[in-house]
Amino acid sequence: MFAADDLSSLRWDSASGEVEIIDQTLLPHTLRWCHLPDLADFCHAISSMQVRGAPLIGITAAYGLARALADDASDDNLRQACQTLAATRPTAINLQWALDQVALAVEPLPVAQRAAAALDKAHALRSADIAVCERVGLHGAAQLPEASGDVLNIMTHCNAGWLATIQWGTALAPVYQAQAQGRAVHVWVSETRPRNQGMNLTAWELQRAGVPCTVVADNSCGLLMQQGRVDCVIVGSDRTAGNGDVCNKVGTYLKALAAKAHSIPFYVALPVSTIDWQCASGADIPIEERGADEVLSMLGRDAAGELLEVRLAAAGTMAANPAFDVTPAALVTRLITEEGVFPATTAGMADLRSRIG
Amino acid sequence: MFAADDLSSLRWDSASGEVEIIDQTLLPHTLRWCHLPDLADFCHAISSMQVRGAPLIGITAAYGLARALADDASDDNLRQACQTLAATRPTAINLQWALDQVALAVEPLPVAQRAAAALDKAHALRSADIAVCERVGLHGAAQLPEASGDVLNIMTHCNAGWLATIQWGTALAPVYQAQAQGRAVHVWVSETRPRNQGMNLTAWELQRAGVPCTVVADNSCGLLMQQGRVDCVIVGSDRTAGNGDVCNKVGTYLKALAAKAHSIPFYVALPVSTIDWQCASGADIPIEERGADEVLSMLGRDAAGELLEVRLAAAGTMAANPAFDVTPAALVTRLITEEGVFPATTAGMADLRSRIG
Repeated sequence: MFAADDLSSLRWDSASGEVEIIDQTLLPHTLRWCHLPDLADFCHAISSMQVRGAPLIGITAAYGLARALADDASDDNLRQACQTLAATRPTAINLQWALDQVALAVEPLPVAQRAAAALDKAHALRSADIAVCERVGLHGAAQLPEASGDVLNIMTHCNAGWLATIQWGTALAPVYQAQAQGRAVHVWVSETRPRNQGMNLTAWELQRAGVPCTVVADNSCGLLMQQGRVDCVIVGSDRTAGNGDVCNKVGTYLKALAAKAHSIPFYVALPVSTIDWQCASGADIPIEERGADEVLSMLGRDAAGELLEVRLAAAGTMAANPAFDVTPAALVTRLITEEGVFPATTAGMADLRSRIG
Repeated sequence: MFAADDLSSLRWDSASGEVEIIDQTLLPHTLRWCHLPDLADFCHAISSMQVRGAPLIGITAAYGLARALADDASDDNLRQACQTLAATRPTAINLQWALDQVALAVEPLPVAQRAAAALDKAHALRSADIAVCERVGLHGAAQLPEASGDVLNIMTHCNAGWLATIQWGTALAPVYQAQAQGRAVHVWVSETRPRNQGMNLTAWELQRAGVPCTVVADNSCGLLMQQGRVDCVIVGSDRTAGNGDVCNKVGTYLKALAAKAHSIPFYVALPVSTIDWQCASGADIPIEERGADEVLSMLGRDAAGELLEVRLAAAGTMAANPAFDVTPAALVTRLITEEGVFPATTAGMADLRSRIG
């Protein structure tokens, strides 16, 4: 189902020799593909969150570096472009990693060969990401339980789909694979306040891929499990500790607690690259605190179709906005990776680590 | 602290001989007191949700009936006015109960005495509600744990404060009493999507009463408990089953699960009138499903200060909107009532029932 480029967040236009991305700041209201002709356009795309999701940020940066080297592949410009791109989202680990990959590939080469090699490397990183997500999807689809009714009801949180990667996604890859294999699936999309990535991105990309879905308030997720309307939960992970504790978008933990209470499988789908083996447990993961305005206001479309932000609370209202929470490994039924499916136990984590080598 | 009428949702203006209410549809952006000169104004106030919350709806209706009888206290008009008022919110149990109370009080009387008796009864119902909430607050304040830090951090959900009753509230009454007793308190206000009663009403009324509070996305509530930043949770109840299962605003259950996981006391504050002894358990309570638009759109104020509704999701997005969930009695630390504080166990419920007689 992902053979076509239209279920992808970033594509290469070979006619113009330029990268195109979906401007995700306009979703779900408008689908606009943007060409990125110059380095400044790549930087803007990342810093303004036209692209988001760790894998997509990294690959966008890799193409941006290739673009900079096409103008000037000198050592100076290589260093300069890396610094410029790295500064667009300082905390994104994949961003620096992808830049390093390109830089390591081109540095040993003569200046005249660097631009082409950088572009090749960017293409290779893009292909590798697609392959990883496809394998996450295949392993995950094989793991999904039988439907309790006519349709397999899968709950997810935030966006860990093809909009966050290049194709397939992580948490949504098993859903897409299951549907491709002919299973009847339906996704409960938790809206994911305060930034609404579930409503804005996940519901949009599922509909685009023809997967039936229903948006619910984050508050409804316990009730749906109480009512027997959820067969399993799949979420992504921003960072997984060496003991299997999962740091993901805030609200993940509440779903994991409810899933446990109702004996519903709770899966975390992740590329092994997001496991932080240096981090012994979730307690060591710092939780980013974001601005209060994300809680106190909301972006939407008015009656005339114009996008605008409305203020929700009274003037002077205080808000707190932690962006992540930690789901203890004991609440995770299985970790779904490109290397296979593992229990989030000491033995399971050791097994997974030995596979990676 | 509630001696003054300005921390009340409904007041009697003896100069004009009219009822005034806060138009809650304008909160938190505008505080507007509305006179209700005629029966039609009472009906509109209830049906348009200018007043909401079961106790407040009931008492507004009682005053509305008194107003109708002031024009015409005949049997015909008594019956007619009762029907008109009862039809404004067909599912509100307190509405019918309050109308019955007034009707029973005036029916035996000569027509000439009915209007005055109806107004007396409405005043009496109002006073009784205040007294019940005040006792809930006193019993609750005595139950609150010690603060783990400098301030007692209390989490609540939805709005069960003085805006939902006449004064004090139910879930918030212990908070107000604790503050009145000199304790340093701080409230975590869960925004309560999709209708945002936490952000719109609870945060507003707490600020109005001088109680420090912080709004958070519903998703953050598990994390705050993980981080040790919550000393207890207090919520209200729309309906409590005879076994102590609590039906309350959707999202309550997720907080109860998290509180249990972190050994944080989870209290439910309620007038005993909201216990449905005919209902054996929470499984027997039907869950109201509301319109999808409440999930898919949001009301707020634009840059010019105008109230408007914005559309959040893409056209064609499906949403589900169950309004309540059920928290099993096993997750409830104590039920706080005007009769005292009881465990939500078989023995506790039997004890409570025997007190009511």
